[in-house]
Amino acid sequence: ELVEIIRAFWQQQDMKGIRILVTAGGTRERIDPVRYLTNDSSGKMGYQLAAEAVRRGAEVTLVSAAVGLTPPPKVRLIRVESAIDMYEAVLAELPGIEVVIKAAAVADYRPVVQADEKIKKTEDKMHIELVRNPDILAEIGRRKTERQVIVGFAAETNHTEANALEKLHKKNADLIVANDVTQEGAGFSVDTNIVSLVRRDRPVRQLPIMSKQSVANAVLDEILSIRRERL
Amino acid sequence: ELVEIIRAFWQQQDMKGIRILVTAGGTRERIDPVRYLTNDSSGKMGYQLAAEAVRRGAEVTLVSAAVGLTPPPKVRLIRVESAIDMYEAVLAELPGIEVVIKAAAVADYRPVVQADEKIKKTEDKMHIELVRNPDILAEIGRRKTERQVIVGFAAETNHTEANALEKLHKKNADLIVANDVTQEGAGFSVDTNIVSLVRRDRPVRQLPIMSKQSVANAVLDEILSIRRERL
Repeated sequence: ELVEIIRAFWQQQDMKGIRILVTAGGTRERIDPVRYLTNDSSGKMGYQLAAEAVRRGAEVTLVSAAVGLTPPPKVRLIRVESAIDMYEAVLAELPGIEVVIKAAAVADYRPVVQADEKIKKTEDKMHIELVRNPDILAEIGRRKTERQVIVGFAAETNHTEANALEKLHKKNADLIVANDVTQEGAGFSVDTNIVSLVRRDRPVRQLPIMSKQSVANAVLDEILSIRRERL
Repeated sequence: ELVEIIRAFWQQQDMKGIRILVTAGGTRERIDPVRYLTNDSSGKMGYQLAAEAVRRGAEVTLVSAAVGLTPPPKVRLIRVESAIDMYEAVLAELPGIEVVIKAAAVADYRPVVQADEKIKKTEDKMHIELVRNPDILAEIGRRKTERQVIVGFAAETNHTEANALEKLHKKNADLIVANDVTQEGAGFSVDTNIVSLVRRDRPVRQLPIMSKQSVANAVLDEILSIRRERL
């Protein structure tokens, strides 16, 4: 407990003035006015990151897809629905940002056609034609300046670390927070997470099971360490 | 206010001992361990119906798809995810039930294949093959006994009343609660609703904009009226 108090005091302003953009939640890709494709993201990890970054003094912009959570105080909230919405919001904010943490679960595909009226069920079979959404992390990586730190997440169901390392390099990111969502106590909806921190030319740091709040602080610590090494 | 108190007192036990099954929420149809198809149902209408029925003395079983709501006290809660889960749960309960209110938004289709591992994005295009889910309301209508009252919902974006009347007859239901979800103050997520009550051989009763709690009580009143007419 004393350790926590000292830590809280010491940390209080260690991100003071750093402009951080956090994305959170699962995007919704509309099929028609009442139906959509989505994923299991609860937004908890992203919201914890935003809340802890604010507590540590950062200026936080939270680009959030629909979640059942109350936004943390003092964040600038931008609500979006689809991957396209999120892509546009993130790229518009990017020039003024020093750290991007992409905690949202963005749909890889969206329906080609979005019907204006509810589709009536008539056929026994149906199929939905999907096209790739723009890759937000890759586009941020392409536009990245020397001052910027880019953090991605990789929610995997197998080959977690190998997939994360590939993502790190392909997307020109600085840190990938990887988790195997099939592990108990990890991933979506639950309040804990089990993650590995994957960086360039560093051994993978496998963290034990932690609250999402503690994972958020571990990720923010790692970001500060990356920034210090660049000085 | 006095009217409300008198109403609350008078109504207190007017559904005493009636066994009601309410379905609520939007089903989730899995594509893989992290992705699914769903719809905009918040579950609010179904949860209000369950809560008001309990308050009026009914014995309520609530078959609920995933929602961000706290279940009302005293209901027997059965949680389900997909349309198939809901179909099985409802039919298992049906023989002991006197009133079924199908407020859930059940997906009409589900993916043919549900992948065991997260599907990796590799192609520019993708398509999802879907098959029809079993029609829960139609199956309840087929099995309906003389004692049972069956209530369905019709969330439409056009031709609301015509579609509701067709649904009433095709599904062998006793009452359809119809709403045009494109109207402001109606439909998903909001706390109000604008509905029409559609019965056999009766003029349609178009209700004004009301809280979902008041709509719930109007629907329960209509159910009691149908039961009285059968005596």
